[in-house]
Amino acid sequence: EIVAAIEAALGQGPLSGRRILVTSGPTHEPIDPVRYIANRSSGAQGAAVAQALASLGAEVVFVTGPAEVPPPAGVQVVRVESAGEMSDAVDAALPVDAGVFAAAVADWRVASASGRKLKKSKDGLPSLELAENPDILKRVAHMGEGRPRLIVGFAAETDNVIEHATAKRARKGCDWIVANDVSPETGIMGGSENAVVLITEDGAEEWPRMGKDAVAERLAQRIAAALAE
Amino acid sequence: EIVAAIEAALGQGPLSGRRILVTSGPTHEPIDPVRYIANRSSGAQGAAVAQALASLGAEVVFVTGPAEVPPPAGVQVVRVESAGEMSDAVDAALPVDAGVFAAAVADWRVASASGRKLKKSKDGLPSLELAENPDILKRVAHMGEGRPRLIVGFAAETDNVIEHATAKRARKGCDWIVANDVSPETGIMGGSENAVVLITEDGAEEWPRMGKDAVAERLAQRIAAALAE
Repeated sequence: EIVAAIEAALGQGPLSGRRILVTSGPTHEPIDPVRYIANRSSGAQGAAVAQALASLGAEVVFVTGPAEVPPPAGVQVVRVESAGEMSDAVDAALPVDAGVFAAAVADWRVASASGRKLKKSKDGLPSLELAENPDILKRVAHMGEGRPRLIVGFAAETDNVIEHATAKRARKGCDWIVANDVSPETGIMGGSENAVVLITEDGAEEWPRMGKDAVAERLAQRIAAALAE
Repeated sequence: EIVAAIEAALGQGPLSGRRILVTSGPTHEPIDPVRYIANRSSGAQGAAVAQALASLGAEVVFVTGPAEVPPPAGVQVVRVESAGEMSDAVDAALPVDAGVFAAAVADWRVASASGRKLKKSKDGLPSLELAENPDILKRVAHMGEGRPRLIVGFAAETDNVIEHATAKRARKGCDWIVANDVSPETGIMGGSENAVVLITEDGAEEWPRMGKDAVAERLAQRIAAALAE
């Protein structure tokens, strides 16, 4: 790791000269000025991936929602709140050699967020009409000109992990999916360890449970190898 | 402040022998294992109030949702996630001499939270049916036997602050309301300062804008005076 840091500082890492986008953290979708819909995501895995890529010499643009874990040093940080803002920040970061989409982006937002605090009323409960958010991963993966050479999506699942993640890879049009089981009993959500399956065109590769930092280093090495081809 | 800390340590503060409940932070209401509805609340004002009460010698039970600001030292911390859990924790903390309800409790939860991650479907968007959460403040304020002698609610408003907060005091049946304007342009939400109006049976008392610690100390002194009557 020290060797990698020195190499990176000297511009000699395997990813030196590469520009890589990493999205991370949750998004917050406003309901009104005091309420929002959120995804559970500490941002730990995304921050670790950004750090690992930077330590291999990459120029990293780190687009992060409101995460619990602070951004790593040595990356360009762009802070956003909502999926719409994240989508704009991703566009602004292009072109890149690779994109790692680790953020837990809200699939839906509230169709008409209120500028005033919603009140309890005697007419009953307010209903939240949802609207679909921009699908950032799918959109970038389907870009013609300007598509990053390697696009890595993430899939947080609670059942049928490999099946769901394989379907997600096809649906989104990305190259790889890093999938994990975030059922509460796994302790992965908010924890320091992760147990992932890497889905590529060659199939599903189950990695042993390890620290999120170790997952990040292994993924960064794989990205470096893929971009070197 | 040093004098207060020494007095508190010696059991000589004006609140020594008093047991006070403080609720703080937001609540998170699950939609499914990876999504939730939340209130914006850093927990900064609630933590400051708990600290100020403890420094005047009170035994403080601090029931906190997932806040950004850590709980103060010297208080009994009870951590909860949802409004339902907070309601149970409040019941378990009783009896108390005073209750300060600074938490931003979600008014609504999702009627039937899913144990599985909701999927986008071709049938369109999922609809979130909401159910009303237990009204902790109102319930405790209307207790016959066992009602705390002094009950302080909080009101985060975005318009007509005094009017809304005065109506809230009557509706909830609490003794005081600490109200503030959390419109984004005030910078109070998530900031270090607060500008509050204290609503009592005598009317509305506007306090100047000051640090959240200073608001907490002033409020703690008022609580001590009220309990000494």
